[in-house]
Amino acid sequence: MQRNDIAVIGLGSMGLGMAEALLAQGHRVVGADVAEARRHAFEAAGGRAVGEAQAAARGSDVVVVVVVNAAQLEAVLFEAGVVEAMAPDGVVIASPTIAPGAAKALARRVEDTGRAYLDAPISGGPIKAKAGELTIMASGSDLAFARAAPALEAMAATVHRLGDTPGAGSAMKLVNQLLAGVHIAAACEAMALAIRLGLEPKQVYEVINSAAGASWMWTNRVPHILEGDYSPASAVDIFTKDLGLVTDTGRTTNLPTPLSAQALQLFLMTAAMGMGPDDDTSVVRLYAQLAGLTLPEPRP
Amino acid sequence: MQRNDIAVIGLGSMGLGMAEALLAQGHRVVGADVAEARRHAFEAAGGRAVGEAQAAARGSDVVVVVVVNAAQLEAVLFEAGVVEAMAPDGVVIASPTIAPGAAKALARRVEDTGRAYLDAPISGGPIKAKAGELTIMASGSDLAFARAAPALEAMAATVHRLGDTPGAGSAMKLVNQLLAGVHIAAACEAMALAIRLGLEPKQVYEVINSAAGASWMWTNRVPHILEGDYSPASAVDIFTKDLGLVTDTGRTTNLPTPLSAQALQLFLMTAAMGMGPDDDTSVVRLYAQLAGLTLPEPRP
Repeated sequence: MQRNDIAVIGLGSMGLGMAEALLAQGHRVVGADVAEARRHAFEAAGGRAVGEAQAAARGSDVVVVVVVNAAQLEAVLFEAGVVEAMAPDGVVIASPTIAPGAAKALARRVEDTGRAYLDAPISGGPIKAKAGELTIMASGSDLAFARAAPALEAMAATVHRLGDTPGAGSAMKLVNQLLAGVHIAAACEAMALAIRLGLEPKQVYEVINSAAGASWMWTNRVPHILEGDYSPASAVDIFTKDLGLVTDTGRTTNLPTPLSAQALQLFLMTAAMGMGPDDDTSVVRLYAQLAGLTLPEPRP
Repeated sequence: MQRNDIAVIGLGSMGLGMAEALLAQGHRVVGADVAEARRHAFEAAGGRAVGEAQAAARGSDVVVVVVVNAAQLEAVLFEAGVVEAMAPDGVVIASPTIAPGAAKALARRVEDTGRAYLDAPISGGPIKAKAGELTIMASGSDLAFARAAPALEAMAATVHRLGDTPGAGSAMKLVNQLLAGVHIAAACEAMALAIRLGLEPKQVYEVINSAAGASWMWTNRVPHILEGDYSPASAVDIFTKDLGLVTDTGRTTNLPTPLSAQALQLFLMTAAMGMGPDDDTSVVRLYAQLAGLTLPEPRP
């Protein structure tokens, strides 16, 4: 079989964009996804795609795994035989948001085979993924960084180098997700209060954007509410997962995280009402249904 | 007695700065404070100060009230006789963060005497107050805005004009305080998790500043934690008060505010441990004491 420079396992909205960014920088890339539609999407962008992860990974120097959680990451690496198929001096770039302990354990198993492991959660969304402008929060050995460098350069605008121990990248991503999740829930609660008190939502958006209550999430997400558009830019289910990881990590390290726990419950309530796949600002629809608020309607 | 252009009732850190900003723009200003030290501070800045609010207000066209809550505002306006002492065509500029319903009720009582009332909560801190660069979230009649205009121009960089009904300014301020309070508590919880997971606090600050977890409060407040400096830029007790107002307003308007309620409990726990007068980032010291975390120490 042909030796591949880089394999991208998982061609979802993030993985597809990252594979395209690698392709755009001249790398030889093989993508893998179980879903035919996702493979066709990558082929339409000029890439080569296969159904089996191991086939994509065979002989690869770099394997970028862009799956949803630690269980999928472990399954790809070991049950699907990706690690044993890749080059003996290859590097795994692990993108999912997982617990730091899980990252450490998986890194050890990969390193036991002689390959390197970069704990490298991503941030930035599908548009930045395709543009090669992600933010990557990474930790791992110097060897892992060296082997991953060409791929990181193609995929990221910013690589935060967080030390030589796998787990630090995942820890930083969890800290970010704690804040991001709480801020989205706070934005929804604040907008619900504003509507209840008779304020005009668009004016509230603009005033807060230039006030001490501002956040990256406020600026980025509230327009979805103003436009009444709950098609998922990022789904409620992402935060039931990521705030679940935050509170689990707190529990297993004996650190109370009461604010994250409350925000998690809000995302869970929203998901329980059937809005798990919808945009994460759907939390405001939970408040609206609870309290009979009239939210902005989509433009006709 | 001499007719005063503008009276500033309450020469705390905000009121003093606002009085100085009015003075700097050439207004004739009389300040009032029960505390001699605060009067001396304004006199040292070239102002005139008296102990009794009514004496300061006598004949004033504009009375700016910079006290802590609705009870103090009501006491100043009516029990201390400020409204009856001011010019019959004067305007009250009410700065404290209060419930929208309280603002409406006080406005009605002032307007019943023929004076105007501007519901005008402030944001920005003492440094911006002194520079005349506050943000003011204001609502009231055209008459109230017209009469208040020269004072607003001297005190504020931005005046958000939120309609002709008193209460809207207070509502917007509450929405801002909901977000500000939750974001401070979230910053403290996130930094506690980061330290528990072995991350370096200064690096966490910088990474998050450029990530989706960023907030105005993260950028502004986390340096206090990094420097180990909990002298109050803004106190824990401000947020036990303001998140109390948020949750009370939610309760009385039948809107659940579970995230604000949880953040309020965190500020209350911090105050209960004796840190009510300390900087609002002291919430991180609550987590540290609960979980045995080592926070950054002040520089020697």
